[in-house]
Amino acid sequence: MKEKKPIGILGATGVVGQNYIKLLQNHPWFQIVDVAASPKSSGKKYEEAVKTKWQMPISIPSDIKDLIVRDVQDFKSIPSGVSLMFSAITMPTKEKIKELEFKYAEKGIVVISNNSAHRWTPDVPMIIGEINYDHINVIPIQQQRRGFSKGFVSVKPNCSVQSYMTPIYALEKAGYKVEKMIVTTLQAVSGAGYPGVPSLDIIDNIIPYINGEEEKSEKEPLKILGTVTDSGIVNNDSIQISTTCTRVPVADGHIACINLKFKDNKPTIEEILKIWKEFKSVPQELNLPFAPKQPIIYLEEIDRPQPKKDRDNDKGMAVTIGRLRKDNVFDVKFVALSHNTIRGAAGGAILNAELLVAKGFIK
Amino acid sequence: MKEKKPIGILGATGVVGQNYIKLLQNHPWFQIVDVAASPKSSGKKYEEAVKTKWQMPISIPSDIKDLIVRDVQDFKSIPSGVSLMFSAITMPTKEKIKELEFKYAEKGIVVISNNSAHRWTPDVPMIIGEINYDHINVIPIQQQRRGFSKGFVSVKPNCSVQSYMTPIYALEKAGYKVEKMIVTTLQAVSGAGYPGVPSLDIIDNIIPYINGEEEKSEKEPLKILGTVTDSGIVNNDSIQISTTCTRVPVADGHIACINLKFKDNKPTIEEILKIWKEFKSVPQELNLPFAPKQPIIYLEEIDRPQPKKDRDNDKGMAVTIGRLRKDNVFDVKFVALSHNTIRGAAGGAILNAELLVAKGFIK
Amino acid sequence: MKEKKPIGILGATGVVGQNYIKLLQNHPWFQIVDVAASPKSSGKKYEEAVKTKWQMPISIPSDIKDLIVRDVQDFKSIPSGVSLMFSAITMPTKEKIKELEFKYAEKGIVVISNNSAHRWTPDVPMIIGEINYDHINVIPIQQQRRGFSKGFVSVKPNCSVQSYMTPIYALEKAGYKVEKMIVTTLQAVSGAGYPGVPSLDIIDNIIPYINGEEEKSEKEPLKILGTVTDSGIVNNDSIQISTTCTRVPVADGHIACINLKFKDNKPTIEEILKIWKEFKSVPQELNLPFAPKQPIIYLEEIDRPQPKKDRDNDKGMAVTIGRLRKDNVFDVKFVALSHNTIRGAAGGAILNAELLVAKGFIK
Amino acid sequence: MKEKKPIGILGATGVVGQNYIKLLQNHPWFQIVDVAASPKSSGKKYEEAVKTKWQMPISIPSDIKDLIVRDVQDFKSIPSGVSLMFSAITMPTKEKIKELEFKYAEKGIVVISNNSAHRWTPDVPMIIGEINYDHINVIPIQQQRRGFSKGFVSVKPNCSVQSYMTPIYALEKAGYKVEKMIVTTLQAVSGAGYPGVPSLDIIDNIIPYINGEEEKSEKEPLKILGTVTDSGIVNNDSIQISTTCTRVPVADGHIACINLKFKDNKPTIEEILKIWKEFKSVPQELNLPFAPKQPIIYLEEIDRPQPKKDRDNDKGMAVTIGRLRKDNVFDVKFVALSHNTIRGAAGGAILNAELLVAKGFIK
Repeated sequence: MKEKKPIGILGATGVVGQNYIKLLQNHPWFQIVDVAASPKSSGKKYEEAVKTKWQMPISIPSDIKDLIVRDVQDFKSIPSGVSLMFSAITMPTKEKIKELEFKYAEKGIVVISNNSAHRWTPDVPMIIGEINYDHINVIPIQQQRRGFSKGFVSVKPNCSVQSYMTPIYALEKAGYKVEKMIVTTLQAVSGAGYPGVPSLDIIDNIIPYINGEEEKSEKEPLKILGTVTDSGIVNNDSIQISTTCTRVPVADGHIACINLKFKDNKPTIEEILKIWKEFKSVPQELNLPFAPKQPIIYLEEIDRPQPKKDRDNDKGMAVTIGRLRKDNVFDVKFVALSHNTIRGAAGGAILNAELLVAKGFIK
Repeated sequence: MKEKKPIGILGATGVVGQNYIKLLQNHPWFQIVDVAASPKSSGKKYEEAVKTKWQMPISIPSDIKDLIVRDVQDFKSIPSGVSLMFSAITMPTKEKIKELEFKYAEKGIVVISNNSAHRWTPDVPMIIGEINYDHINVIPIQQQRRGFSKGFVSVKPNCSVQSYMTPIYALEKAGYKVEKMIVTTLQAVSGAGYPGVPSLDIIDNIIPYINGEEEKSEKEPLKILGTVTDSGIVNNDSIQISTTCTRVPVADGHIACINLKFKDNKPTIEEILKIWKEFKSVPQELNLPFAPKQPIIYLEEIDRPQPKKDRDNDKGMAVTIGRLRKDNVFDVKFVALSHNTIRGAAGGAILNAELLVAKGFIK
Repeated sequence: MKEKKPIGILGATGVVGQNYIKLLQNHPWFQIVDVAASPKSSGKKYEEAVKTKWQMPISIPSDIKDLIVRDVQDFKSIPSGVSLMFSAITMPTKEKIKELEFKYAEKGIVVISNNSAHRWTPDVPMIIGEINYDHINVIPIQQQRRGFSKGFVSVKPNCSVQSYMTPIYALEKAGYKVEKMIVTTLQAVSGAGYPGVPSLDIIDNIIPYINGEEEKSEKEPLKILGTVTDSGIVNNDSIQISTTCTRVPVADGHIACINLKFKDNKPTIEEILKIWKEFKSVPQELNLPFAPKQPIIYLEEIDRPQPKKDRDNDKGMAVTIGRLRKDNVFDVKFVALSHNTIRGAAGGAILNAELLVAKGFIK
Repeated sequence: MKEKKPIGILGATGVVGQNYIKLLQNHPWFQIVDVAASPKSSGKKYEEAVKTKWQMPISIPSDIKDLIVRDVQDFKSIPSGVSLMFSAITMPTKEKIKELEFKYAEKGIVVISNNSAHRWTPDVPMIIGEINYDHINVIPIQQQRRGFSKGFVSVKPNCSVQSYMTPIYALEKAGYKVEKMIVTTLQAVSGAGYPGVPSLDIIDNIIPYINGEEEKSEKEPLKILGTVTDSGIVNNDSIQISTTCTRVPVADGHIACINLKFKDNKPTIEEILKIWKEFKSVPQELNLPFAPKQPIIYLEEIDRPQPKKDRDNDKGMAVTIGRLRKDNVFDVKFVALSHNTIRGAAGGAILNAELLVAKGFIK
């Protein structure tokens, strides 16, 4: 790949958009050439448009700061040659987002979205690269049904499920089917965006509720573990999931405490550890730039994983696990962690884009 | 009760001992006249002995600061008339604590202990005033077996179980037997005492492990819900409990996220709410000074209970609950909170002492 | 004072307004009968209007929750008998606030305002009860000039100056004139209101800037220490003040680190301590309900004052000081603390109202 | 430099020792071959010795974990070829540390120490690479006086002064002599080591005192800006410094708020900015591996520097400054930040070692 692929960011001025800009600095395959946002930013230099809103711990990259922000509704000004857009757009309704993202697809653009709007559209894949990479096979169905030629929409799931779906998939793949899961999450404030959680609400405090999060984390795994059919992706309803999602005074890194009950075939603790340690998948085989070398890192220390110490493992793309032990009520329990704004958001989406490029879906 | 009962604190210089001193200020029944600690503090004025260690947000009460600290092993200097000691003593081994507490009992003193040493001694009651008040009936058995005349040892359970045992007991009492419980706790740093959790470990972080806490919180409920027999208290093994205990950057107030499965008889959400709202027990009937008026407070707000806003409800003695809802996997789930250093420690023990006085066990 | 005076809150739904409601619960002199806010709240029950915005650690008092919110611009609906309004109103411009507050004064209402709009109006007193109580003598000038009969506007200064102005005034009053002051403040997030400081900005972080705060804290002391003349209050420009204001991860309680240089007459450390310990002023002499018994509390412990341990001293109305010591560059330095949302905001304003009632300015 | 120089760490198991191990990973010049600690660790593999104490966010490097810990008093087992030791040793008294460090020097070892013991030994240089690099000229005096052949002791100053000494030196060097400085610091908890500050003391709190810190930060600058004479380093007493040091709930990164008064010659704001932006010194000229490219980074944003966003600038080795503005009382004021465990501790010492190697003092 001699020349970098020119790409764009929809919703480039928000905090997720900024994360894309931070993470795509020096990306070997992609070069941001288009930053789009709402009309009130459009026409300004990027640097000016984000001025007081830039949240990243680095300066705005020099190749980005002078880009002129495009109105996200202005399709005529999309730079030629751009075939991929990361969407971090927010709008008043999900319907408007769905429409906008499909409109880009119609214009021949591949849209990889962080937004939850299209997660339940059956012909839109919701991908975690190590798990349901084969859901990309729903793309031709989407294109045909919607009349898209080269473009399509692909999404990533909610950040809260990232820490436990890969380890659970690894077990399922090894033949140990999960029957029931009870999960309690301790989620970082960056998951709420910026300004997000007011500091008065979280200093010396816990908020035991996150709007919409429990619904997402109970339902999305069923699609992720589902099957591609002619009419789209059909959920795998064989797992029962119950989640409680809480907000904690941590900047980055979502923790999940998981209790698991298997169906008939039950692995030993040693078997599980072996499965996790040896787990590799397509992103590793393809050696994708954002693929963590070891997708599941298991720590033997009794008091890990911890957000501050472990969230940045493998540049924030690995899932870190610890405390696997017998469960009095179900079969086993463990604690899992993933970086919510990297693996759980922009980083996960970039990995999906790399997968789609490697598999020939983005030209 | 015209005259106040003279009482003592064993381990008076530590943070739990300090909490007793804070909470017993102006207590209508009890007057601290004896403060005991290790030999390195004994002989000093209390004020001097705790000098740099005083953690309470109030000054040392004027009636306490000039008390001379007694060596906890010096039984001869126990002020005459003292028939009750709150024990917050720490020692190298549990055996030594057991021995010391029994020695006080032998000397005719009632010992109400925060320490976990005697929690598994079958003839020592482990009491939550609203639940197993009738476990005080094991005291005559203890006295007879051990040869104690007036003295005895009584303990309180671990702070982590306080937030959910009362609501669960209320349901059991109403005829809805619990079969399985999966609990994840988010525990405050004050639970680890002082100096306790280093700030470097908890700023912007979660520690998903607390030494010994999961064992305690899985086993203690079985004794609390047990039955007094001639040979001591026999556990109720009919509930299966699994807990994951985590430490969070909160000063005070333990949160628990609870998933419940009932046996055959399953209450509706409305029935549960009614049971909790109407729940009163012996401490309320006896109108004990430290009894919360409403032991279980249910909040309708979607994002409660929260440690900072709710831990001090009814002077830190009430349990606050919220988010009762259907559970996809078990029957119901909810979030519970109690103040770990008040209800879960010194305050809970004071309530137990009041109960024992009211029932004629402390003269 | 047999019957309570009926009063109102302008801007009752915001966090400062809520603080008034919390602090005025059971006030011996005042009874809230009017809650006013913007048109989008007006017409609703107070409980409904603040629904998701109620931040106080108590429930909405039962005598308040059913009050119907009045549109702050609807002067006709002011309940009869109300002669005092606490103003916590926010509006797009200071001019609009000035105008509104004067309009209430014109209608015969005394307005005591937390807002900074009128702080630089020369005939509006900016009062700290223990310091410039005699600035109330500018009120007749204001009334005459503006054509107000019974009404007038009085304000309180910024929260950041509260912790050091009383101790400095005590020294000035004792004859030790201050020449230069260099101050660095460490201010709590509640000073920014709600939602205020985003948690992402302050977890594991310091923000060394607060918009407008340094200007206010350098200029307001000059008016507070000024003199009433026929044309209004004339500043005392004899003190040079330099401040740096920072935001820290603390919920409540502003700390200030102060370096002081005196003019010719320099007190010893012992003299300063004596002056502070003996300091009392008019609010104490009048025994006003919100007056702290001891306005300046000096702590001998080397590591105090601390926000968490000392902010609530005397119900949050006292200033707590520590670490008075020689200064290598100026004469002395010390650390001071006051509770920003109590003494520094609603509590300070309530004390001012009590002073004005006691002095016969509010009928 | 083809082959790496074999070096050792004294006090390798503590948190400063661990920081050396983290920072020296892949160092181009140095290879750790010796880890020394107290007798209770000696004889064990390093991995085992630090087991539960390892605080770094990375795993123990593979080339370190199997090193056998040497007893720090066992001089016979020093691996041959080692001519440099970083000392992070702690002992009961400063005298013992002084003695131990000189004993290593006597054995021909260069000791670069983080400990404060030798900071006031006149023939021991206390170096900040960009400022008093020429203080290395006191080394021959030390060696001659003490009878050392190749070995000597060099120290680094306290972490609290690092953020402002370089910018002040830059101004002094440009001809603008400072007369008076008033400084308030907001220091991170990692400055207190591990376990260090208890979390109960710092959650939602400020501690306005750090034992010994104000003395160090008022005196050490005088030696740093001093002059080498035949009898050792003579202090520069022409600057008056007053500091107040506070502890804040931040993990890493010390903030200082500085008020400066110049002698006769006063620079404009623009001149100061120019001096800082252009400032380079010997470590930059020598292109030392740990030298920050730009030692002083000035940020134009009104609310910077901030610990979380700026502490890691240039791998934690740069000083970041902001908010330079006119001062009402002195001449100018500004806010400065440096990473206390990198620039202010192990990183600063490594830079000093590199300087000494480059200048031929370590063979």
